[in-house]
Amino acid sequence: MPVPIHRLCGHRHGIDVHSHIVPATFPAYIGSKIPSDWPSMVPAHECHRHVMIDGKVYRTVSDRCWDVSRRIADMDEQRIGVQAVSPMPELLSYWMPVQEALLLVQHLNGTIAGMVDESSGRMVGLGAVPLQDIDVAIGELTRIMCTPGFAGVEIGSNVNGLPIGAPQFDPFFEAAEALGAAVFVHALRPAGKERLVGPAQLLQTLAYPTDVGLAAASVLCSNLMLRRPQLRIAFSHGGGTLASLLPRLEQACKVFAPLRDVVQASPSEQARKLFYDSLVFDQATLRHLLSSFGESQIMLGTDYPFAFREHDPVGQTESINLDEATVERLIYRNAQEFLGIS
Amino acid sequence: MPVPIHRLCGHRHGIDVHSHIVPATFPAYIGSKIPSDWPSMVPAHECHRHVMIDGKVYRTVSDRCWDVSRRIADMDEQRIGVQAVSPMPELLSYWMPVQEALLLVQHLNGTIAGMVDESSGRMVGLGAVPLQDIDVAIGELTRIMCTPGFAGVEIGSNVNGLPIGAPQFDPFFEAAEALGAAVFVHALRPAGKERLVGPAQLLQTLAYPTDVGLAAASVLCSNLMLRRPQLRIAFSHGGGTLASLLPRLEQACKVFAPLRDVVQASPSEQARKLFYDSLVFDQATLRHLLSSFGESQIMLGTDYPFAFREHDPVGQTESINLDEATVERLIYRNAQEFLGIS
Repeated sequence: MPVPIHRLCGHRHGIDVHSHIVPATFPAYIGSKIPSDWPSMVPAHECHRHVMIDGKVYRTVSDRCWDVSRRIADMDEQRIGVQAVSPMPELLSYWMPVQEALLLVQHLNGTIAGMVDESSGRMVGLGAVPLQDIDVAIGELTRIMCTPGFAGVEIGSNVNGLPIGAPQFDPFFEAAEALGAAVFVHALRPAGKERLVGPAQLLQTLAYPTDVGLAAASVLCSNLMLRRPQLRIAFSHGGGTLASLLPRLEQACKVFAPLRDVVQASPSEQARKLFYDSLVFDQATLRHLLSSFGESQIMLGTDYPFAFREHDPVGQTESINLDEATVERLIYRNAQEFLGIS
Repeated sequence: MPVPIHRLCGHRHGIDVHSHIVPATFPAYIGSKIPSDWPSMVPAHECHRHVMIDGKVYRTVSDRCWDVSRRIADMDEQRIGVQAVSPMPELLSYWMPVQEALLLVQHLNGTIAGMVDESSGRMVGLGAVPLQDIDVAIGELTRIMCTPGFAGVEIGSNVNGLPIGAPQFDPFFEAAEALGAAVFVHALRPAGKERLVGPAQLLQTLAYPTDVGLAAASVLCSNLMLRRPQLRIAFSHGGGTLASLLPRLEQACKVFAPLRDVVQASPSEQARKLFYDSLVFDQATLRHLLSSFGESQIMLGTDYPFAFREHDPVGQTESINLDEATVERLIYRNAQEFLGIS
């Protein structure tokens, strides 16, 4: 169902494609023995709850994760007209038996639908699907794309270790293309964690963008955008490390015959058909992304409402000395195209 | 021993810090049962040999890997005055019992010493040390730094999976600093290989720079350059993915108290104390490295004589519209400082 764009979007307000939600509560487990990775909520300090996974606090989250009015107040302050809301990635539940995952995922999607409905056009949904079973995932994708408020889905950069460019996922992307569902790829249980020296936060700091970069590269190497030219797919964290990997991949395709045989169009050209958020915390890096991926492919992303987020996405974009048309593209026009909002 | 700079270096000729050698032959194994990963050479087509490891062709290499006169002819053509020569990384042998590794590594170092000696000042050595045993590694480092022709060592981005920023390696870096040994960090048995979709060449194309980026980040997170301020350490492949990771690491240190407590100086400032080669195959990316890491930190690197290499490093550098002083830095002055050649 086409989602109308909110009247606020435009010169004054942008569209944030990268924000997360957590439901205020999780459903009770329906089977006989609750698996340890079934999430639950316990109260924390004022306005906060602990998301418990595997008997530990996975993350302490504020009511901004589920409270629509608080979110909208923040959006007004940050000049965000519309927020695309997607689940906190660890809730995607690819590692559970599919029927259990489906129960959780439908709870997430129900939460998202309710928040979007309550937002009076200020939110649009990117739901979840259990990609450990492609058929079930396609079923859930079809269901949410017939539900008011959804622009598409969030998926992990890998599914139980398998990067999303792997051929197994092609039927899912075929369905996403046919349904007109935007696909937002977010880092999840990343590669590279064995190479970190320091506190646990390095996982999201360094391994997340590493996994996103490798996921995007897997999409280029498997020619996804040649096979699914109408697919709209975006990568979190500015595509992670892709900008660093891309020229080397381009050169390798010139040098190595086996790569040239497999990669059917220039990786750099293919990369200009993917979307990316602007969540890189650095003006020079954002300019480099514009040069690497194109001015039509970058969109605001904040990681709202988590602590490690961009607080002034519109101001940051306005400050880097781009022409007005490019600023407009970055602030809302590209996101409008990616999300398919009219 | 100080290595004098060859008279060719300067306006007309550069210094290549990233070139590899393979010995023409490997020593016979001295024990009773040859381990499967002991390398050997078998003849291939004209001027080529197969490096055999684990009963398979690891790589087919040309006589440019060991023939000094052929190398110098190529250097003349590519306007390279001096080449720093380091082993093909897979020969570093960190995975072998240390005494076996030492035998191989001393064979590599002997080969390097001989090639440097034969080169009439056109080559300088970056040797190998068995980092699976820090004490033995320091012993071998001390030995080669007292041998004519060595500027330092090549080490892997990780040692049997442990990134080089791990505290275990600090005594080695302490010795390198004290001995004035340049340390060239090259990708080896990288993280991320489980995320590749396509032919085997993607390992060196995508996972190599991924591992280098994470290794460099581990050095920043462990404050190596604060603890060893005189250390000269360089990262291959333009630092791999570090340029993409760095602004996010910088921001994370502002947001997360545990990271701020551990990382004792701005990662971006620390990154400007590391050296990097320019092997990125793209002018915009090289400019981005200059802006991220500083004009005093980037040096020519080619990966000569392997197929996936930069063929015109000086010309590439001259073509990107930098002022003359910066071109000189990139072409030879920074390398002169890194290698400690006078």
